Amino acid sequence: MNHEIRIFTEAQIRAAVALDLETVNVTEEAFTALAAGTVIMPPILSMELAEAHGEVDVKTAYLAGRESFALKVSTGFYNNAALGISSLNGLMILFSARTGLVEAVMLDNGFLTDLRTAAAGAVAARALAPQNVETACVFGTGLQARMQIEAAHLVRPFSKVLVWGRDRKKAEACAADIAKAINVEARAESDPAKAVEAAQLVITTTPAREPILKAGWLHPGLHITAMGSDMALKQELEAEVLTAADLYVCDRVSQCEALGELRPARAKGLMSGITPPELGQVLNGTHAGRTSETEITVCDLTGTGAQDTVIATHVNGILENSGTVIRA
Amino acid sequence: MNHEIRIFTEAQIRAAVALDLETVNVTEEAFTALAAGTVIMPPILSMELAEAHGEVDVKTAYLAGRESFALKVSTGFYNNAALGISSLNGLMILFSARTGLVEAVMLDNGFLTDLRTAAAGAVAARALAPQNVETACVFGTGLQARMQIEAAHLVRPFSKVLVWGRDRKKAEACAADIAKAINVEARAESDPAKAVEAAQLVITTTPAREPILKAGWLHPGLHITAMGSDMALKQELEAEVLTAADLYVCDRVSQCEALGELRPARAKGLMSGITPPELGQVLNGTHAGRTSETEITVCDLTGTGAQDTVIATHVNGILENSGTVIRA
Repeated sequence: MNHEIRIFTEAQIRAAVALDLETVNVTEEAFTALAAGTVIMPPILSMELAEAHGEVDVKTAYLAGRESFALKVSTGFYNNAALGISSLNGLMILFSARTGLVEAVMLDNGFLTDLRTAAAGAVAARALAPQNVETACVFGTGLQARMQIEAAHLVRPFSKVLVWGRDRKKAEACAADIAKAINVEARAESDPAKAVEAAQLVITTTPAREPILKAGWLHPGLHITAMGSDMALKQELEAEVLTAADLYVCDRVSQCEALGELRPARAKGLMSGITPPELGQVLNGTHAGRTSETEITVCDLTGTGAQDTVIATHVNGILENSGTVIRA
Repeated sequence: MNHEIRIFTEAQIRAAVALDLETVNVTEEAFTALAAGTVIMPPILSMELAEAHGEVDVKTAYLAGRESFALKVSTGFYNNAALGISSLNGLMILFSARTGLVEAVMLDNGFLTDLRTAAAGAVAARALAPQNVETACVFGTGLQARMQIEAAHLVRPFSKVLVWGRDRKKAEACAADIAKAINVEARAESDPAKAVEAAQLVITTTPAREPILKAGWLHPGLHITAMGSDMALKQELEAEVLTAADLYVCDRVSQCEALGELRPARAKGLMSGITPPELGQVLNGTHAGRTSETEITVCDLTGTGAQDTVIATHVNGILENSGTVIRA
């Protein structure tokens, strides 16, 4: 079937969208649609290439009424650093939801995944964090540590940031980047307990396989977003964090119990028989969110195909007539 | 990560590969690799868009030692005919198995799927059909009916073809196309039992949800390849066909028991406790194939990601320096 397909490059996509409130609002639509029950979202396809220390994840979702749906392939190849190549790559493909024809190929090398992941953190912070956040804390020192803080700052304009990471030098570099990017006071903090103690908003962005945030550190008026765990074996929060919090919210329960913090909690016999609310239910008011400044809330983000579809259709709408047109 | 990605169109791909013995041999490599246990092949991702009468399937596989792996998205949107568009579309993406970077995007609109599916039929016929096939029979009147017969003819040069389909006119058109394509005597046969009776090789290519080929029709010296069933609910062979045959072979057992003819057979209590051999085991001699001209053999093809990887890497090798180069 000879038809027009648009090819967009990472540079074109980066010129079209940024980590701003518009992107946060677009990303929020994914969660409200999930809560409305109008999303078809199959389980994630995963393949591990142990030889190359690589993994491949495929996500997709159809949001009822939309003209297009995206399918996203994320690759993570952890020997790439030695080759001077980013570990995370991939692309998104936009299909017509009416005919199944390919409409656009977004050669974003994972940029849109980074963007919609950070934007989801802002959606969670806006919905659940205390109104007054003076100090934010981030665990992890990679790209998402920077982007999550930048995104959260859009909705909670904190003035101080503490960065904890296993590598002090990397934490300092991350803090310096954050200070520069959003004009806040940012520094590395070697003691994770102290970092949490000082913060009203904590975001965990690590690939930890053992809990790095303990339940004993929780304090009134705290919101935690855990976005590092996106596969079985990963865990950032001590399981008791989920039960000690006043409210624990999933992006998607079926994903959090397979890939997120709910998996190790259930394995430990906690949260059994409990179906946590989803972020979209808090957003649309069908489940209460934070009810006071002193509550403790936790949001578990594993990343959904619905986010991919909303960001890809958004970008496609902006780029519309640009890109390379291929007739195929 | 700025790197070169090649975009190939359906026309370029069609000019590069055809349904010939080379394609059959390339496809065979998928099955021998599966049997060697050197393939990583996750379960298929499927999404149904009931509103649009559409479905999306994603397959992928990594064959150890290969530099690239493919990920294939197939779309089937069954209202397309009314729009004058083919129902089946999709694309393949080739990734580096070392870095995860996208190497090529094959905008084939499903052509390579058609090709490797038909080629697998030839692999099965070459491995399992009687040496002397005078008459072949095909159930179904669509593109795969034509292609499967054309592919099988490469390995078993039969002189007669019988076509059975629910729609007599379509069966006649299909027979006429086949007669012209491979220069054989071909005609429609309204009675499926008679069609099977006259044939030494039967290929079923329909989306049937009730058995269309009965166990009572089996006769000595018959090979059946059932390739229509690729999702739960579909079934072409009466369950007893599997047990009545001397040999029942799967392309991949885990897929056939979820999506192929093994699913309804097991549901009926047949084949319980039996793990059938896979086609690759027959090919590499670790499981006996047909041992006489009079045996009855059955091969169940659901379509594997391994086939997608071998055909995509083959095409990429041929097209190498052509296509549109995008730096992204």
